[in-house]
Amino acid sequence: MAQRIVTLTTDFGIHDHFAGAMRGVILNINPEARIVDICNSVNSFDVLDGALTIAQSYSYFPSETVHLVVVDPGVGSARRPILVTTSRHFFVAPDNGVLSLVYAREERVSVRHITSEHFFLQPVSNTFHGRDIFAPVAGWMSKGMDSAKFGDEIEDYARFAMPSPKVEGNSVKGVVLKVDKFGNLITNIDANSVPQMFGDTIPAFQINVGTGETSEMRTSYANGENGHLFAIHGSMGYLEIAANRGSAAQIAQARRGSEVTLTFK
Amino acid sequence: MAQRIVTLTTDFGIHDHFAGAMRGVILNINPEARIVDICNSVNSFDVLDGALTIAQSYSYFPSETVHLVVVDPGVGSARRPILVTTSRHFFVAPDNGVLSLVYAREERVSVRHITSEHFFLQPVSNTFHGRDIFAPVAGWMSKGMDSAKFGDEIEDYARFAMPSPKVEGNSVKGVVLKVDKFGNLITNIDANSVPQMFGDTIPAFQINVGTGETSEMRTSYANGENGHLFAIHGSMGYLEIAANRGSAAQIAQARRGSEVTLTFK
Amino acid sequence: MAQRIVTLTTDFGIHDHFAGAMRGVILNINPEARIVDICNSVNSFDVLDGALTIAQSYSYFPSETVHLVVVDPGVGSARRPILVTTSRHFFVAPDNGVLSLVYAREERVSVRHITSEHFFLQPVSNTFHGRDIFAPVAGWMSKGMDSAKFGDEIEDYARFAMPSPKVEGNSVKGVVLKVDKFGNLITNIDANSVPQMFGDTIPAFQINVGTGETSEMRTSYANGENGHLFAIHGSMGYLEIAANRGSAAQIAQARRGSEVTLTFK
Repeated sequence: MAQRIVTLTTDFGIHDHFAGAMRGVILNINPEARIVDICNSVNSFDVLDGALTIAQSYSYFPSETVHLVVVDPGVGSARRPILVTTSRHFFVAPDNGVLSLVYAREERVSVRHITSEHFFLQPVSNTFHGRDIFAPVAGWMSKGMDSAKFGDEIEDYARFAMPSPKVEGNSVKGVVLKVDKFGNLITNIDANSVPQMFGDTIPAFQINVGTGETSEMRTSYANGENGHLFAIHGSMGYLEIAANRGSAAQIAQARRGSEVTLTFK
Repeated sequence: MAQRIVTLTTDFGIHDHFAGAMRGVILNINPEARIVDICNSVNSFDVLDGALTIAQSYSYFPSETVHLVVVDPGVGSARRPILVTTSRHFFVAPDNGVLSLVYAREERVSVRHITSEHFFLQPVSNTFHGRDIFAPVAGWMSKGMDSAKFGDEIEDYARFAMPSPKVEGNSVKGVVLKVDKFGNLITNIDANSVPQMFGDTIPAFQINVGTGETSEMRTSYANGENGHLFAIHGSMGYLEIAANRGSAAQIAQARRGSEVTLTFK
Repeated sequence: MAQRIVTLTTDFGIHDHFAGAMRGVILNINPEARIVDICNSVNSFDVLDGALTIAQSYSYFPSETVHLVVVDPGVGSARRPILVTTSRHFFVAPDNGVLSLVYAREERVSVRHITSEHFFLQPVSNTFHGRDIFAPVAGWMSKGMDSAKFGDEIEDYARFAMPSPKVEGNSVKGVVLKVDKFGNLITNIDANSVPQMFGDTIPAFQINVGTGETSEMRTSYANGENGHLFAIHGSMGYLEIAANRGSAAQIAQARRGSEVTLTFK
C-alpha cells in the first residue's frame, strides 16, 4: 500500500528545478513512494501533446499507480485541480482536458474536484501548482489515502475530442498529431476512421504531407530505403509517415499540425 | 537508515554516460539507495545556475536526504571536495560556491573537507570526480555512515553572494538570474531588496529588459494576454517577467545576465 | 532477488512516451524492480554511440543488474533479440552489435536468442520492440527468472570492432568517437594503440582535428587557458581534445567522425 508508484508527465522540462522540487514534495509526504518518469518534456503549454503522452503510457503500469500529469497553462486561474479514479489507476491533473484520451478509453471514471486545501503546500503560489497542489495530492494518494478525502465528484469536467480525419469519397484529410524523436510523423488516421489502411490487403493509395509524398506501405522501419518516405502502422495505433534511419519530418518539411492527405486510387 | 535518498544535481547532461555511471557507483556501494534526479542539465560550468537549482529544491526532500551536487569546472585542480551537514540534509559537492545559497538559508552548517581517499574509486581520474569521488561518498553517506569519517571540518569554504539589485532613488538595476524552460525571465529582485514590488498594493512602475518593456503586474500567467510581457511573483521568490503561453525571453530578446531596469513612476 | 536493478540505455529520447511505456511494462511484471536510467538520449539509430554508452557504465553497477539496451534501427526486421549473461550482469538487447564493447571486455559471455514469445506483450508491434519484447524480458529477468527459459544459446551473434587508430611511423590517424556534453572530443586513441601518449613522459607531439591544432597535454580541464585546445587523458580511457570552460568541438569545428591526426615531432 505504501509502495504505490507515482509517475510524472509534465511540460516542466529538464533544465530547471521544477520536476526535482515535485519529487521532493512527494517523497517528503511518502518516503516510500517510487517515482517514475513518463515524460517531463511535453511541449510547453501543449495540452494535446500531454494527453497523447499519458494515453500512450498509463495502461502499462501496475494497478493503483498514481499518474501525476501537469501540463497547466492555466495555473493560477479558475481551472480546477482534479483527482481521477479509473478501474485500475489514479490521475492527478489540472482540469483542462489533458486526461481526455484517458476518459475516452476507460469505462468507469470518477472525477473529483480537489478542494481540501489542508493537503496543499502553504502558501500556495499562483505559478507552480505542480509543487504546491498536485505533488502533495499525489504523495498522499501514494500512501493509500481514500480519494473521497480530497473533494467531491464532478460531472462537468473538461474534455476534448481528438481531431478526427475527414473522409470524403476516396479522400481522407488528416493531420500530424505529433513528430516523435526519430522524426516519424504520427497522423490521426487510425483503424476506426480509415479501416482500409489497417486491413490485410491495402488498396493503392497516395499520401501527401508537407512537401513529401508516398504510395508505399512498409511493415517495419528497416524495410524502407534510406531517405524515402513510406507509411507504416505505428505502435501508437495510428498511421505514421516514416523514413528508414532518417527523419520524415525533415524530408517532408512537415511538423505537428501539418495537413495529411490520403487518396485511394 | 539504509534507505536514504540520494538526489542528483549536475551539469552532466542527458546525452552521455556520466550520470548513469554515477548512479551505478552509488548503487554498487548501497544497492538500497534510492536515487532521484533534481536536474542533470545545469548549464555547463555554470556554478550560479547549479546554486540556484539546488537552492530551489533541497528543502522539499525528507530529512537525511543526501544531495549530490556536481557542477565542477575545476575538476582535477586544487579545489576541495566537501561534505556539508545542515540540520536536516547532507550535501556532497566541490568547494566552488555551488552551495552558497544553501549556506545563506541554513542556520547551522558544518563543512568537511573530504580527504579519506580509501572511499574513492581507484584510480581517481583527473576529469570525472563525479564518478570517482563524489558518487562514492554519497553512496556511503546513504548507508548512514558518520560524516566525520570523511575528513575534518573547515571554515574557509568557498561561498559567493548572489548579485543583489542596486536600488537608487526611484530606480532599481537588477539582472536576469535565469531563463526557465518556458522562457520566463527570473530576475534577482526579491521581497528583501525591493519590498514595494511584493506588497499588497504595488506602485506604478515600469520594467525594461532586453528590447521589452512592461508596466503591468499579473497574479497568474494565464491572466496575461498572449504575447504581451508582464511582471509576476514567481514561485522561486523572485520577480519574473513572463508572457502567457509564450517566451518572454524571445519576446524581449533577453537572456541570463541581461540587465533589468525597474523604475517607479 | 525480487530487487534486481534494471538500467535503461536507449535512443528513445526524452520528448515521447517511449521510455515511460517501457518502465510501465517492467513494473507491471515486477512492481519491485528498481529502474535506473543510464542514458535515453543515445544518438538516433547510432549503434556505436549506444555501444560506447553502455560500455562506459555497466561495470559500475551491482552484480545481477539487468541492463536493457535498445538502440534498434532494425526493429521489425530479421535481427534477433538477445539475452546476454556475463560473470556479473545481464543484458537484453537487439543483436546488432550494440554490446560489442561488452563482449570485448568480458571473459565469459553467454548469448541467447530470445524466442519464448509467451513472455512478449501481445500483439507484438513491428515498430516498438522496446515495449513489446525487450522490456518484458528485462522485467522477468529482474524477478530472477532463469535465463535459459528465454531461448537457446547462439555463437554467431553480431559484433563489430571499434575503429582503431592507424599508426604509421611517427604519425597516428584516429577518429572522434563522440563529442560529450561539454564539447570534449573523445578520440579512439588509447593506451593500447598509442602507449607513448599515456606514459610518464610524453614526447613532443602535434594533434590536428577539424580546424584545430594543439601540442599541449594537460592533466585537468581547469589547467588549460580558456578557449585554447589541449589534449588530456579522459575518464573513458581515451585521449580527448578539450578546452577549459569551452567546447573543443566548436573551437575546432569538429564532430563525431572527424579525423584526428597525431604526429610525434
